[in-house]
Amino acid sequence: MSPRPRTVAEIGEFAVIGRATASRTQPASTLLGPGDDAAIVSASDGRVAVSADMLVEGRHFRFDWSSPREVGRKALAQNAADIFAMGASPTALVVSIGCPADTPVDVVDAISAGIGEAAEELGAGVVGGDLVQSDQVVVSVTVLGDLGGGEPVLRSGAGIGDVVAVTGGLGRSAAGLALLRAGADYGAAGLDGLVAAHRVPAPPYAAARAASDSATSMTDVSDGLLADLGHLCAASGVSIDVESALLQPGTDIDVAAELLGVDPREWIMTGGEDHAFAATFREESDLPEGWTRIGRVRDGSGVSIDGSPATGGAGWESFSV
Amino acid sequence: MSPRPRTVAEIGEFAVIGRATASRTQPASTLLGPGDDAAIVSASDGRVAVSADMLVEGRHFRFDWSSPREVGRKALAQNAADIFAMGASPTALVVSIGCPADTPVDVVDAISAGIGEAAEELGAGVVGGDLVQSDQVVVSVTVLGDLGGGEPVLRSGAGIGDVVAVTGGLGRSAAGLALLRAGADYGAAGLDGLVAAHRVPAPPYAAARAASDSATSMTDVSDGLLADLGHLCAASGVSIDVESALLQPGTDIDVAAELLGVDPREWIMTGGEDHAFAATFREESDLPEGWTRIGRVRDGSGVSIDGSPATGGAGWESFSV
Repeated sequence: MSPRPRTVAEIGEFAVIGRATASRTQPASTLLGPGDDAAIVSASDGRVAVSADMLVEGRHFRFDWSSPREVGRKALAQNAADIFAMGASPTALVVSIGCPADTPVDVVDAISAGIGEAAEELGAGVVGGDLVQSDQVVVSVTVLGDLGGGEPVLRSGAGIGDVVAVTGGLGRSAAGLALLRAGADYGAAGLDGLVAAHRVPAPPYAAARAASDSATSMTDVSDGLLADLGHLCAASGVSIDVESALLQPGTDIDVAAELLGVDPREWIMTGGEDHAFAATFREESDLPEGWTRIGRVRDGSGVSIDGSPATGGAGWESFSV
Repeated sequence: MSPRPRTVAEIGEFAVIGRATASRTQPASTLLGPGDDAAIVSASDGRVAVSADMLVEGRHFRFDWSSPREVGRKALAQNAADIFAMGASPTALVVSIGCPADTPVDVVDAISAGIGEAAEELGAGVVGGDLVQSDQVVVSVTVLGDLGGGEPVLRSGAGIGDVVAVTGGLGRSAAGLALLRAGADYGAAGLDGLVAAHRVPAPPYAAARAASDSATSMTDVSDGLLADLGHLCAASGVSIDVESALLQPGTDIDVAAELLGVDPREWIMTGGEDHAFAATFREESDLPEGWTRIGRVRDGSGVSIDGSPATGGAGWESFSV
């Protein structure tokens, strides 16, 4: 019989926090790491970008579908995507975790490790956080970013006539989630890639960075393509028309849609958790590497598809049914 | 019959976030406020201090004991205290809130208002955050701070012979909590001040700021005096001896202790949530205004009281029984 795993309550808050921060190396931007009342992070050009997201067990992840390490990596990805969408690079994170007292300490360690290793890949440090008792596992991440002297890429910069383009997978996470929900034998169908995309999104950070000089507006696709294009429209005071023929689902999405008897466009138009990026570019400029044209900025308001107002698909809202 | 209050689910995530951020004015340090993928905050000397805390309903607050506005003010206070303890001033906050779908929107609005008004009093802006669905109300705050070109005051700077001093209430929040737990008629006993101190701590920010030039080490008392002095000892590689005669409880704490039949020193030594500050100063320097001497830094390790090792009172840990 294997020994009962030690719990967070048995080890104690300070010890668990110590385990989470001890093994990580800090980048040069971490001027003072964890262990004092606050950390101190370099903000080389006198500005710091900041964004936060909270993930809740049962709502944003399930431990029977994702490992704790995958949950950590996902939390990092969705936060980092917000920073890249501003044209900035992540420098540091603070991570607060709530969990029940009987949570095995290995679970918290693995969430921390997932966040830490993914942060390290991006050159960012985990510089602080909190660990508290709660009924559900809650992972709250705040990420800081450095604009490197450049201008931020806002949602409000889209101009009429601009090209609308995307980079990264669309609908893949939503398709993976649908396969998990349906209990589909996705492995046998060769659809592991979609489930992996749901467990750990892989935002195309390099492509977002490549767009930061030329994009007139940019956002990450976190609420669904139509919803996030709608945010660009509202902030910029324009309309966006999407050419549906330019949004070709991948082969595996088509296979998954057929398997589940659904329309793959629903995933592509409203699935948010891939953390792809959408941006607009001046008509005459070449698109950066990795970007695909999907439409055009027009006069007016709201998003249309092939000239008709997009209906439904308000995208992910935390409290939608 | 009054109408049923509208819930967060009925109004929707984006609308609630919009309500929380629309009415607040932003300080000059907020270069880009809420509404884009990330906010941008000034970091005037090229560095940013950052700290985070998470508060959980039923663990850190109860809505039958504290109003939502008080919960918000408390969340702000405990985060701001960490920044002042570094010798920095808060510039910006991001606030992530989790709550059940049937939470009245007024509750979330009031938490946000409490955070926002307390932030405004300190000249800090609420620049972003998240709102998600969870079983309990969870308030996760990250605060950014500006060192204004000065050196941070670390926990590790205490030197042998330094004077140990505190500023702010000690044990008042713990006494207030004990009165609430006991169901005591604290109003009739003239002890409202202790309960108020539990609901909304009032850290002595000005005194902490006054110490930032001369303190050799500083921390906020968030885990309890003995525990937090222990953190200073461990970080500085020294021992601290507290003279108990210098720790006189206030009259109301004595009254509360007599009412409940307990030893008031337990509250003073181990009560953390007042967010008082403890610091060390060179022997020859005058203490800044608002600070009271309580002991001396010695060779050795750990905290002693009147020369005897302090026992018990490890202070607040999130997972302690």
